Amino acid sequence: MIRHTVAFRLRHTSGSAEERSFLADAESLAGIPGVERFERLRQVSSKNAFAFGFSMEFADQAAYDAYDAHPVHVAFVRDRWAVEVEDFLELDYVPLGA
Amino acid sequence: MIRHTVAFRLRHTSGSAEERSFLADAESLAGIPGVERFERLRQVSSKNAFAFGFSMEFADQAAYDAYDAHPVHVAFVRDRWAVEVEDFLELDYVPLGA
Repeated sequence: MIRHTVAFRLRHTSGSAEERSFLADAESLAGIPGVERFERLRQVSSKNAFAFGFSMEFADQAAYDAYDAHPVHVAFVRDRWAVEVEDFLELDYVPLGA
Repeated sequence: MIRHTVAFRLRHTSGSAEERSFLADAESLAGIPGVERFERLRQVSSKNAFAFGFSMEFADQAAYDAYDAHPVHVAFVRDRWAVEVEDFLELDYVPLGA
């Protein structure tokens, strides 16, 4: 199992229609083959400047690679992520010992 | 539900006995009342400089606060974390809409 996570902050005003649109449209990523346990999260610690997070799991690296190359993911990154995200940090995890 | 996560890097050499000791002893945190789904993780993305992660969930803020104040947690932070961790980032998540 590989858990792919990203913490991020949007360029949009908090609570704006643009923010809601981005978060709603991100749900399309959940339908890409191989994506398991897709979660849209609010980041609530005051110890960093990120406002949201996405988390998803893949069975293996092949499933992760297929997601990365999938047209729905590629289009989302190009048309929404690259335009609307101000800052982000990707963290990918596997169980310790795996 | 609040998911408390921390990504970190140790001062120890990768694969060292000191590293193994730290990761093994961290398992004691899993026994603190209120801690659910405790996970010790390896961070595998090349897009950041963290090597490990811990993740745990709490039912609510009261459970999180109780963990924070619990003597086992306080001692671990004082005796191990503050001494052996080189860099870290805490990210706390709640489900979007919660």
